[in-house]
Amino acid sequence: MSQPTITQAADFAGETATYKVGVYGATGYTGQVLMSILAEHPNIQVLFATSESSKETEDGLALVPIADAPLADADAVFLCLPNGVSGGIAAQALEAGVRVVDLSADLRLDTPELYTKWYKMPHPAPQLLPTPYGLTEVNREALRGAKAIANPGCHVTATLLALYPLAKAHALTGDPVIADTKTGVSGAGKALKLDSLFVEVYGDVKPYNIGRVHRHVPEIEQMLKKLQPDVGPLVFAPHLVPVDVGLLATVYARMKPGWDMARVRAAYQEAYTNEPLVDLLPAGRAARFKDAARKNNAAIGLSEGAGDMLIITAAIDNLRKGAASQAVQNFNLMMGLPETAGLL
Amino acid sequence: MSQPTITQAADFAGETATYKVGVYGATGYTGQVLMSILAEHPNIQVLFATSESSKETEDGLALVPIADAPLADADAVFLCLPNGVSGGIAAQALEAGVRVVDLSADLRLDTPELYTKWYKMPHPAPQLLPTPYGLTEVNREALRGAKAIANPGCHVTATLLALYPLAKAHALTGDPVIADTKTGVSGAGKALKLDSLFVEVYGDVKPYNIGRVHRHVPEIEQMLKKLQPDVGPLVFAPHLVPVDVGLLATVYARMKPGWDMARVRAAYQEAYTNEPLVDLLPAGRAARFKDAARKNNAAIGLSEGAGDMLIITAAIDNLRKGAASQAVQNFNLMMGLPETAGLL
Amino acid sequence: MSQPTITQAADFAGETATYKVGVYGATGYTGQVLMSILAEHPNIQVLFATSESSKETEDGLALVPIADAPLADADAVFLCLPNGVSGGIAAQALEAGVRVVDLSADLRLDTPELYTKWYKMPHPAPQLLPTPYGLTEVNREALRGAKAIANPGCHVTATLLALYPLAKAHALTGDPVIADTKTGVSGAGKALKLDSLFVEVYGDVKPYNIGRVHRHVPEIEQMLKKLQPDVGPLVFAPHLVPVDVGLLATVYARMKPGWDMARVRAAYQEAYTNEPLVDLLPAGRAARFKDAARKNNAAIGLSEGAGDMLIITAAIDNLRKGAASQAVQNFNLMMGLPETAGLL
Amino acid sequence: MSQPTITQAADFAGETATYKVGVYGATGYTGQVLMSILAEHPNIQVLFATSESSKETEDGLALVPIADAPLADADAVFLCLPNGVSGGIAAQALEAGVRVVDLSADLRLDTPELYTKWYKMPHPAPQLLPTPYGLTEVNREALRGAKAIANPGCHVTATLLALYPLAKAHALTGDPVIADTKTGVSGAGKALKLDSLFVEVYGDVKPYNIGRVHRHVPEIEQMLKKLQPDVGPLVFAPHLVPVDVGLLATVYARMKPGWDMARVRAAYQEAYTNEPLVDLLPAGRAARFKDAARKNNAAIGLSEGAGDMLIITAAIDNLRKGAASQAVQNFNLMMGLPETAGLL
Repeated sequence: MSQPTITQAADFAGETATYKVGVYGATGYTGQVLMSILAEHPNIQVLFATSESSKETEDGLALVPIADAPLADADAVFLCLPNGVSGGIAAQALEAGVRVVDLSADLRLDTPELYTKWYKMPHPAPQLLPTPYGLTEVNREALRGAKAIANPGCHVTATLLALYPLAKAHALTGDPVIADTKTGVSGAGKALKLDSLFVEVYGDVKPYNIGRVHRHVPEIEQMLKKLQPDVGPLVFAPHLVPVDVGLLATVYARMKPGWDMARVRAAYQEAYTNEPLVDLLPAGRAARFKDAARKNNAAIGLSEGAGDMLIITAAIDNLRKGAASQAVQNFNLMMGLPETAGLL
Repeated sequence: MSQPTITQAADFAGETATYKVGVYGATGYTGQVLMSILAEHPNIQVLFATSESSKETEDGLALVPIADAPLADADAVFLCLPNGVSGGIAAQALEAGVRVVDLSADLRLDTPELYTKWYKMPHPAPQLLPTPYGLTEVNREALRGAKAIANPGCHVTATLLALYPLAKAHALTGDPVIADTKTGVSGAGKALKLDSLFVEVYGDVKPYNIGRVHRHVPEIEQMLKKLQPDVGPLVFAPHLVPVDVGLLATVYARMKPGWDMARVRAAYQEAYTNEPLVDLLPAGRAARFKDAARKNNAAIGLSEGAGDMLIITAAIDNLRKGAASQAVQNFNLMMGLPETAGLL
Repeated sequence: MSQPTITQAADFAGETATYKVGVYGATGYTGQVLMSILAEHPNIQVLFATSESSKETEDGLALVPIADAPLADADAVFLCLPNGVSGGIAAQALEAGVRVVDLSADLRLDTPELYTKWYKMPHPAPQLLPTPYGLTEVNREALRGAKAIANPGCHVTATLLALYPLAKAHALTGDPVIADTKTGVSGAGKALKLDSLFVEVYGDVKPYNIGRVHRHVPEIEQMLKKLQPDVGPLVFAPHLVPVDVGLLATVYARMKPGWDMARVRAAYQEAYTNEPLVDLLPAGRAARFKDAARKNNAAIGLSEGAGDMLIITAAIDNLRKGAASQAVQNFNLMMGLPETAGLL
Repeated sequence: MSQPTITQAADFAGETATYKVGVYGATGYTGQVLMSILAEHPNIQVLFATSESSKETEDGLALVPIADAPLADADAVFLCLPNGVSGGIAAQALEAGVRVVDLSADLRLDTPELYTKWYKMPHPAPQLLPTPYGLTEVNREALRGAKAIANPGCHVTATLLALYPLAKAHALTGDPVIADTKTGVSGAGKALKLDSLFVEVYGDVKPYNIGRVHRHVPEIEQMLKKLQPDVGPLVFAPHLVPVDVGLLATVYARMKPGWDMARVRAAYQEAYTNEPLVDLLPAGRAARFKDAARKNNAAIGLSEGAGDMLIITAAIDNLRKGAASQAVQNFNLMMGLPETAGLL
């Protein structure tokens, strides 16, 4: 990896350092948002961006196929590639001394066995596992200076941010934890699938892969069990809604004795009051798409359920805090930049 | 009440009988759908329709103010009026010997005390309570020949249809039952509210009145406890989605030991296989808006959660099976007509 | 072609005749709507429906590949097939004595040369040209008893219905006639194209192929010039709007001296007052999607422009009066059935 | 008016000057967008913002009623007030030496008579007419240092930007000029009207006030005739589409002999190539909502019609280039700031 041209000591908190980055998969929905964030980032120069199908972006930036990308000249790369492809490029990058933020699922699960079970293929780079998991607010210290980071899925980000303060405090019971999520359609990506056609989605609200069959289940449970080993099983029910961007997790969780709303709120305040990209909403306000869509933050609301059951609502933009802006947040930590550079 | 004009032996199950009905509140969203169903109903002549603000419908039918409606000439009336107003008209109608299907909330709760607690006003006609509750599939026998019927709310219909086969079998545990519902915007009616403006709703998904604060909570629990007295508390979380019509309840419920998916499915098949307006979806298919929007039926799906937790999805059109078409179904029972007259 | 089992003389205006029909391409958006109309048609039995990709419809009806369809057993077929394929099947059907309503573009233009110019391929069945053109209200007499009918395109139907009374009266000047159309996304069909993805369409209004480059230009001008040979050139500007179904043509046309609004309205009244599937809106009311979406009718509004320029608005459902319901209307004429059988 | 607090020689083109501004009507859709732009503007300090109904913005900024606003302490005010109210405040501001950008219609027409004819009320401040008209690209020199500016309507901005290069060159014939516009719903504002309810708008495309009856007709013609006195009459047909923000004008205009597409393109290039907030699209590309929605620019496309008829497409964000961002652009000119300060 090349060195930043301006040394850390010479700048103000690293703000004038400039890193050369490459973006793999720049024309997908996540790639497009990532490119727009990077264009405004004060410390980033986009060295190259790849696409197998397009020669330039809508804004006229040149695109190259993966094979032609000058990987070794980059300080870091963002990978917005299909599962199974991304991991291989991550390995190449790391061998060349280039840092990696991987937005695919390839580096999210800790073992190749778990990956193969859920993704039905051999892991493309098992030697990279486990990779530090980029749920920034939960795992920040492991991300500072990391060589590679596995950026979380969008449903996962919302669900884990909703549960983190409770799980960290071991406040959850062993009962099932329910995440009923509603996602905008861009979460399905730009692949040409019947289910993504306008006419199919318009006017519909559709649950899909509900229960314990969605690939986000092991990703959520892996982190949840690290935080609280005796947590109950996850019941996960994603729903597709006719909106382009946005994601809301409505999470139902039961708490151990001694946890009332005041103690709950105190735990969330402790966890999130100083977080620059998490907004804890006032009592009585549930989170909604509009709290986070087209923004880089997450919004969290706390509502009483019944008895020991709490309802936590967490809204994010699935392409931003659920993908591209969290990737940049992680990149900033990786490089020692201010965590919100390019994001506020 | 006048008698049906044709009562010959030649009738097949009363199919040629014609009843004169009045529609109170014909220009709201529910009233409009109801009018369109009644126009095609083979046994109904719409004697009058009321509106305080319009003189005719979009189709050019004359509208009269409530004060001018020839109530006593009707065989039956449908009330699509505001809570607090509807009950008074219901009382007048019954005194005049006119049958009533009330689509407001006024007759849904069994006691005036419960009504006052949740609706913050005195009950307009406490002498009518309890009124037979018009969740047709659950309460059919009480509706045949009834003088008045309280038509259920839309979230309530979906949630109770989702839970009925389990509750009837006393299969639910005492744990909280969770209903995470998603509703189209027409559920909020035609009232001029900021929250109903296009720009406010577009692009948003918004939880509202979640937990145990929505007025549908006592309505759902009242029926649920009649079916299974030891059922757990309801946690109810409605969400507004940017669609005009449709409602989906995603219900999470735990079952007593001995209830596996096979037994669950058998219970739902027994309850719904012969129901003309409830479609039980095949294994693996969750219900979605498009299964029921602009249709008169409900669609029910069964999915595995985790362990003893089941996920039941129930889709209806909030203005049809959740309001107008269930009202007609109830009217048919009330009058001794084929239950689906005008609905298939 | 088999004969109707019940002779014309024996029934009431043909209402009890039953024809066996085949539907080619039953799973596209037009095919689906057509199937739903046919299911309610009192004189039609669907003998077979084809699909190359699916084995049954969403409602569980069996589908066969084209190669397995018992074409010769049908009285008539509806062709919802791709351009270039449809014409060949039409020829096979006619050879087998089976009548044809073709919803593709193959039979719409009068000569193979014009077809090749606009569709960039040889005509699949030049011997069938010219085929009677199924714009029902304009060409009704040519459709009664026809062996084959070319069903018009959706933009074409709206634009020509907007202009017909003027063109028939030779009231248009030689100035350009402008049709600015707005179409729902189902007009693009179920093909997997990036431009049809939800995220691409959502929030956008997009002109496409504007000017004189869209394939509907020659189709509109061919009929317009038959009605009024000295009509001016068409300027055609279709726009894609984020709605599933509906089509609105806003047409700007200049009239010869002597044509004021009163005379214009009289001409439209004469043309449309007795048309069962065309609604002439009252003065001051422009047509909108909601006048025709999910309905079988067209709605026409007349508005003053400036001086000799008139604005005509014409709304249809692109899948119904713009495709499937006009096809059934044409089928009814072809078979001597009441024109609106199955459509009211 | 107070002087900018910082006036050092060290300023680069005034970039570090700070002006105190007031925003009247900060909670409407335009006001909200304006507030968000001002918050990022390097030379603006928002001194106060008014609302008659709210005490703070969604972001927690304090709001005051108009009566309590410290008008005289401001350097300039933006007026997002109802027609008929705004003009009076403008007069008060100017008397107090405070500059005004008025986003209402009050100062747009040159004479009180014309205003009264179209707005059906006496003009609130006839002494202010005519006010420099803030269509920036067309009228820039009159705006530099102006005391008051009348900010144009959104349909007007798009239509006039579409026609400006031709009208300036006197290239238009005397035939009618047609502007068929499609607007997002936020253009109707936050007023509680049935026509703005989600359910009313959803799934619809609706022409309204078409012909020569919309209030934007005199506003467009006033400027058009200043540019080319012999221009033909405007035919203006706005359509409401189910989108929150965006506006597209599809303009059909005939050109005098000698104007072919090459000459047309050259005229638009001359007019717009150096404009920072107008994008001239390449040949063959028509403008669409997505070219301008949520952006501060306009996008202009040129397409061949037929013969001497040109089709110009112009897209803007109705709340930005059609309102708030053009207001800021005008403010910048008024104050001698870089024209795009706060807008790029």
